Amino acid sequence: EMESWSFLDTVESNFRPLVVIELAKGTKEETIKWFTERIVDKKANGGEYRMIFCAQLLVKPLVTENGVENIYLVGASHLRLLLGAETVGLVKECSDNSMRAFTYSSRKTFKHFADDNHNFLTMAECQYIIKHELENLRAKNENMIPGYPQAKLYPGKSIVRRLLTSGILVQIFPLHDREELKKLSHSWYGRVKVGYQPLDDIRCYFGETIALYFGFLEYFTFALIPMAVIGIPYYMFAWEDYDKYVMFATFNLLWSTVILEVWKRICAILTYRWGTLLMKRQFEEPRPGFHGVLGINPVTGREEPVYSSIKRQLRIYLVSLPFVCLCLYFSLYVMMIYFDLEQWALDYHKENESNFSSLMLYVPSIIYAVVIEIMNRIYRYAAEFLTSWENHRLESSYQNHLILKVLVFNFLNCFASLFYIAFVLFDMKLLRQSLATLLITSQILNQFAESLLPYWLQKRYNRKMKKRMCSKKSDMDLSLAEQVNMEKEMGTYLGTFDDYLELFLQFGYVSLFSCVYPLAAVFAVLNNITEIYSDALKMCRVYKRPFAEPTANIGVWQLAFETMSVISVVTNCILIGMSPEVDALFPDSKMDLVLTVALVEHLLLAIKFIMAFVIPDKPRDIQTKLAKLEFESLEALKQQVRAFQMQLHFLLIHH
Amino acid sequence: EMESWSFLDTVESNFRPLVVIELAKGTKEETIKWFTERIVDKKANGGEYRMIFCAQLLVKPLVTENGVENIYLVGASHLRLLLGAETVGLVKECSDNSMRAFTYSSRKTFKHFADDNHNFLTMAECQYIIKHELENLRAKNENMIPGYPQAKLYPGKSIVRRLLTSGILVQIFPLHDREELKKLSHSWYGRVKVGYQPLDDIRCYFGETIALYFGFLEYFTFALIPMAVIGIPYYMFAWEDYDKYVMFATFNLLWSTVILEVWKRICAILTYRWGTLLMKRQFEEPRPGFHGVLGINPVTGREEPVYSSIKRQLRIYLVSLPFVCLCLYFSLYVMMIYFDLEQWALDYHKENESNFSSLMLYVPSIIYAVVIEIMNRIYRYAAEFLTSWENHRLESSYQNHLILKVLVFNFLNCFASLFYIAFVLFDMKLLRQSLATLLITSQILNQFAESLLPYWLQKRYNRKMKKRMCSKKSDMDLSLAEQVNMEKEMGTYLGTFDDYLELFLQFGYVSLFSCVYPLAAVFAVLNNITEIYSDALKMCRVYKRPFAEPTANIGVWQLAFETMSVISVVTNCILIGMSPEVDALFPDSKMDLVLTVALVEHLLLAIKFIMAFVIPDKPRDIQTKLAKLEFESLEALKQQVRAFQMQLHFLLIHH
Repeated sequence: EMESWSFLDTVESNFRPLVVIELAKGTKEETIKWFTERIVDKKANGGEYRMIFCAQLLVKPLVTENGVENIYLVGASHLRLLLGAETVGLVKECSDNSMRAFTYSSRKTFKHFADDNHNFLTMAECQYIIKHELENLRAKNENMIPGYPQAKLYPGKSIVRRLLTSGILVQIFPLHDREELKKLSHSWYGRVKVGYQPLDDIRCYFGETIALYFGFLEYFTFALIPMAVIGIPYYMFAWEDYDKYVMFATFNLLWSTVILEVWKRICAILTYRWGTLLMKRQFEEPRPGFHGVLGINPVTGREEPVYSSIKRQLRIYLVSLPFVCLCLYFSLYVMMIYFDLEQWALDYHKENESNFSSLMLYVPSIIYAVVIEIMNRIYRYAAEFLTSWENHRLESSYQNHLILKVLVFNFLNCFASLFYIAFVLFDMKLLRQSLATLLITSQILNQFAESLLPYWLQKRYNRKMKKRMCSKKSDMDLSLAEQVNMEKEMGTYLGTFDDYLELFLQFGYVSLFSCVYPLAAVFAVLNNITEIYSDALKMCRVYKRPFAEPTANIGVWQLAFETMSVISVVTNCILIGMSPEVDALFPDSKMDLVLTVALVEHLLLAIKFIMAFVIPDKPRDIQTKLAKLEFESLEALKQQVRAFQMQLHFLLIHH
Repeated sequence: EMESWSFLDTVESNFRPLVVIELAKGTKEETIKWFTERIVDKKANGGEYRMIFCAQLLVKPLVTENGVENIYLVGASHLRLLLGAETVGLVKECSDNSMRAFTYSSRKTFKHFADDNHNFLTMAECQYIIKHELENLRAKNENMIPGYPQAKLYPGKSIVRRLLTSGILVQIFPLHDREELKKLSHSWYGRVKVGYQPLDDIRCYFGETIALYFGFLEYFTFALIPMAVIGIPYYMFAWEDYDKYVMFATFNLLWSTVILEVWKRICAILTYRWGTLLMKRQFEEPRPGFHGVLGINPVTGREEPVYSSIKRQLRIYLVSLPFVCLCLYFSLYVMMIYFDLEQWALDYHKENESNFSSLMLYVPSIIYAVVIEIMNRIYRYAAEFLTSWENHRLESSYQNHLILKVLVFNFLNCFASLFYIAFVLFDMKLLRQSLATLLITSQILNQFAESLLPYWLQKRYNRKMKKRMCSKKSDMDLSLAEQVNMEKEMGTYLGTFDDYLELFLQFGYVSLFSCVYPLAAVFAVLNNITEIYSDALKMCRVYKRPFAEPTANIGVWQLAFETMSVISVVTNCILIGMSPEVDALFPDSKMDLVLTVALVEHLLLAIKFIMAFVIPDKPRDIQTKLAKLEFESLEALKQQVRAFQMQLHFLLIHH
């Protein structure tokens, strides 16, 4: 069943398919020829230094029973991958246990390196390198994609990105490694066990971004356990005395600061071990969707599309901002409808007191929770569309604007009703009931919509596929062609954004009104334990394998969580101040009460900031290791300078 | 009057003295010989690469009428200075107006560079290079300083630092350039003029740290003008309506945020022009006073003194912290005495109402202001002693601990009485009077103690010196020997710490209670205008020339000023809330008043943080220039990697 090598002029015999390229049906022959030639090209053009224009990879068309579909497998020789590892700045562990940027010339000093050890780079790393090389395949003197005159090119434009935006290239995705995946999924979620997730294995298979998400999810779950444990007796014995209340809230507030600070340290430990803490930031190219008039980029001096920053600002402030405000208004309008419903249910319950009517009391909250989820999802698409229309040049700037839009809306959408109940209606009973319903409903909905539903759909599809192929083989025995055809139909994992957002909102439910509903942390812990399993299932069985993405931290989410914990100080202080027990302590003067609450709040905030300042972001040994690396590179530079000066001096003295 | 070259074996003929080394009287001959030989040494020891052990500078003893005193002049050849500029990482302007790190091999691309242009490096830069080279003169195999068996050395220890700590080396200081100084002082403070200070000239003469201080002082004065201008009518017409009050305070609070954010941008513009924004951080060596048992530094792997971090923590928490608390308590105790005095003066005034007695009302505040100044100064010495005793390894860590200690005490010492009057006594009239007296007295005291007194002392001393030398020459015609003798007796400028501290406290007086005493900004502006002149006088005439110190920003002071502006939001909101006019707006419910004030305060704080987040720290064009440099260095690295890979590939293919 082996096909002949197509465009290969290499001595490499053990071609290992790593990445799949799917071209649109009916793509012109000349385009395919040009594209694949560019991928395998290894000629330096006319002596001039032009290696950046060819990727030197290996390509093979996929042949199935139906003949050649427009699907190509990409691999690379071992040497090519090692050189690519140097180009992307991969950091690996040396024999002396220190982490260093890999270079081909110093390859012998790295742990587990041997010229015939093809597992020195993990499969995820190889796929990341290939993706990087493909994306850096740039036009040299083409004005357009051969065969498609409307798909314009200019020197330096990424060919793959143009192919993607003009629809000729349907998708690029890395192949699963069925064997590894089976091992991983067994140790990850295959058996019910108490213990940590195999984070290092997850990182090897899925890359650092995803492993860090699971690391955070696990850490956050562990960190919530003390809150949950303390919360249970409060709920069970209905401890509502003043001092116990204050103690619980104070503990929660300080604890939430501590866990966020400690996470930074754990994150540093993890990413140091994975090498991404030391990885140099690559120069950021324009994002695929960015368009504009051809001009000169002031930074690179290259010709590329330029889009006026003023136009973008106008789009942001005159269109996006009003739209977001409108959405916020709409969300508040829906909230008011919910309160009407709530009132109606209450009236109904009063009129005909029955089991059914008391159950009816929960219905408005449940409906509202569902509506919130739906609105969040619809808004998400609108936000993506708008942010993309704002035409940001860099992916990071696009992401920041998208995250800001989504966070503001989701925050208001989820918590506005709770704020209204707490600080306008002053109805603690309703707050507790509403909080519980919202939290639990949203958790159930999320688990269902995110993992179980796609899993079930995927499973059904797989069964249908297999039936069509008339084969009864297990997943492990599928031929390469069958595997590729199966995987190309799987959903695409769109990144950790939604997963972090879910945790962020959960953190809000737990911390904003923690002193009203101490059981929230318990539900959060329970949810997160199942979340780990369902997310793991989702990654391994539902979605295409995602490309590994190196990262050194959880980025803007750290800031988002910290902001939430500052807001929660304010809300909790007000809640405690409003409780009748505290009220009773200041029988004479409401003034004293409010002033005391304000004082306590400011003190707590001050302690928070001082704690955040005092706790170092990186553990001492990581600091030492980083300082050592910096010292070494400074020394190396100094040696170079001195050696040069030495030569110069000898020249000056002896001639 | 020219002396013979002593240890020089160089062809360089135009020796320009740059730095003066003063050894203790009676230093042994062998020590002097060893030390000066090490300074001029240019032999690479035994083929081994050991250039770091010799400085290759030029040294000349100073001969006066009294024969050879232990004073040596240090200079360097032009080539040596250029190589040194590369070693310290100096950044200079290129012909294409971009800023780049100077390297000898690319010297032709730099603006104003010519092999015979000895002014390419400013004198301050040359002196900085020489200081760097002297401090990096390290012991190779000496176990002690020759002639002084008790002054131990170990390989790698800085010789100059050991000589300084063992008292053999009295001081090292850079020489003034009388001609340049005259030009600078004329354009700086010589004539009364409206306009900016010659910051670039100040930077050329005194270095970046001092120029940045004067830049900040000037900027801060300009920034205070709007506050002063708005404050005058408030004071004159006694506008005390609610809305005008709130407007004034709100303006002040937002303005103070804006000026601090804008300063960051101006600072980036200045330091980009001066090259320090791009200067790479050098590896930080242990500070001179640091001592410990000889051990292995985990970062450098070198043998050097090691001091247990636990011991240091114990010293900090068991000795320093209690001492600081004691001082704070003492300061509060003094404050209570002040209030007794104040009460006594009030009683006295009531008993015998006369002009004298009404004048007496101000006496306690004035005495208290003087006592505060004295306490601040005494505490400063104690803090320095304690922090030095804590035995910090790095200068930066020493500085941070010192600044923290001093700031906390000075803040409490200066503002505790005001806080007490405002929030315990609720006496707005006394607050206003006290604030005015404290502010004005401390300003007068500072100007006197810092500049005028030393200037007068210095002038008297100079006159005496000249009389003794029986010469009636002006400063310009002094011989080198006379100049050196004059300058070595001048005071040493101890850095910008005290100057920034003074501005910090002034900022506190202006912003913390701005709505009570709108005239504070006016006094601050007037003070700062004279401060510029008296500080300039101090730098040019009173003190020895300080070594230039490259810096990219005002460091921890930015944080200190920002913290102060956050605290001022809180105090101003409370003050406004307490004013009778605002009180009258909420006749029914004190609760509503307090809640409104708290809400406004939180809103203002939120706006502050959002503004700080939204305003970029660097102007767009500086950002572009920095991105361009980063892009270029990444490209250069990539080119290197690719070129290497290219070679390798050809090798693999052709052999």
